[in-house]
Amino acid sequence: MSGFPELSGATRVVAIVGDPIRQVKSPAGVTGALVARGRNAVVVPMHVAPADLDAFLDGVQRAQNFDGVIVTVPHKFAAYRHCATATPRAHFVGAVNTLRRNSDGGWHGDQLDGEGFVNGIRAAGCIPAGQRALLAGAGGAGSAIALALLEAGVAALAIHDDDVARRDALVTRLRTRHGDKVTMGTADPAGFTLIVNATPAGMQPGDALPVRAEHLVRTMFVGDVITAPAVTPLLEAARAAGCATQVGGGMFAAVAALIVEFLLAEGPLAH
Amino acid sequence: MSGFPELSGATRVVAIVGDPIRQVKSPAGVTGALVARGRNAVVVPMHVAPADLDAFLDGVQRAQNFDGVIVTVPHKFAAYRHCATATPRAHFVGAVNTLRRNSDGGWHGDQLDGEGFVNGIRAAGCIPAGQRALLAGAGGAGSAIALALLEAGVAALAIHDDDVARRDALVTRLRTRHGDKVTMGTADPAGFTLIVNATPAGMQPGDALPVRAEHLVRTMFVGDVITAPAVTPLLEAARAAGCATQVGGGMFAAVAALIVEFLLAEGPLAH
Repeated sequence: MSGFPELSGATRVVAIVGDPIRQVKSPAGVTGALVARGRNAVVVPMHVAPADLDAFLDGVQRAQNFDGVIVTVPHKFAAYRHCATATPRAHFVGAVNTLRRNSDGGWHGDQLDGEGFVNGIRAAGCIPAGQRALLAGAGGAGSAIALALLEAGVAALAIHDDDVARRDALVTRLRTRHGDKVTMGTADPAGFTLIVNATPAGMQPGDALPVRAEHLVRTMFVGDVITAPAVTPLLEAARAAGCATQVGGGMFAAVAALIVEFLLAEGPLAH
Repeated sequence: MSGFPELSGATRVVAIVGDPIRQVKSPAGVTGALVARGRNAVVVPMHVAPADLDAFLDGVQRAQNFDGVIVTVPHKFAAYRHCATATPRAHFVGAVNTLRRNSDGGWHGDQLDGEGFVNGIRAAGCIPAGQRALLAGAGGAGSAIALALLEAGVAALAIHDDDVARRDALVTRLRTRHGDKVTMGTADPAGFTLIVNATPAGMQPGDALPVRAEHLVRTMFVGDVITAPAVTPLLEAARAAGCATQVGGGMFAAVAALIVEFLLAEGPLAH
């Protein structure tokens, strides 16, 4: 494959941290993108259990050529606590998916999942501005996507979550910024134009669908954050109904592109 | 270049730790050798200051796919203290240059510099058995090389060090194993057949030579551990006198080959 650095003592190191980790694909893609931009850098996977994350980060950050961390499940909230500084959207969701160094060595975090999701659906032909969106899932990914959809100009956003308290808390917080275009949603997609699944429903065989598929119609665009299976039962149902769709893999490709830009924008990889 | 792994979430990670680190060449060579043996593994440099080494190792070892550490200057003694188990030669010198995992996750260390030096001079045509050796330098590298020369069957080993107490302490310890074939040496190589520099003398322009070059004669074999410059003033003088020589780079290639075998012999990279 192409896109490897000239590994040497001068190589800079970025880790992708998760539990499990075997399934991640970012090491090759992000390494290749950094090398294509002229950096001698490599992204390596690090399999770290939740109980070990704090000690792992406290230790590995002692390495002076360790320039960044890509954060995946289940560490996005815990990694936020290691940030000296973070972007407003990271503060809003209290989670990060990428860290880079400030000039004093501390970590600056961002949560790029929401913007990545929006970029992904744009690449698939869906223009979010003006859409009436139903989002299933008010957790970490859902919170980031909700904020990004609102910033991208959706006309209305309804949020559904089986955990009603979590749903209501997110809606309340989003309303402080975006007013009554944010509402409590249900599993019924009728009347919406953009349907997003940000729940785990669909990862396991036999999972219930996150929204009522019998109300999907071909004028809706349906996106899913799940990458395995590549096409979830929700997306299969949407395609059967004639909907345009965006798979989770498309979102993650867009997130990876944003991670590269974030790592290169400031800090030791910027030059 | 060839010899890169298919970087993914399944890639195993080995670090080479030093201060400075930019000069090391092991990442490409050892990675290539591991890949050639069928492992999906990458060796990455980690620039860690002495004061940070303990915290760095305590943290990074939390990663479950972090399988080994190659240790370079100045960390070889400090890294020994992180070993749960170590080889007899590592215990003898109190230092390690490579760590791999035991089945319980603890570290098993070895100090391969001495055997690597001996393999290097063998590859350059010098058979150590029966030689009368003068070794300059009783520090970490010198201690490892002294032990390896004795185990390779030199007839006599004299050790020279400007720090007389350090010289005498090493001689005393080696005599408990190898008796009076080990003696206190001076900077005069007259009468010896194998001359080894394991001091830093020769790294900086203007350094005094570690032995008296005017007594070098063409029947002597002269080896040096220094890799930069590639050919030290001592080796230049030896070549001018007609001696066969071994440069530090040759030693380090031989050490790298032993590191690969050590990492593959047991532990997570063995299969």
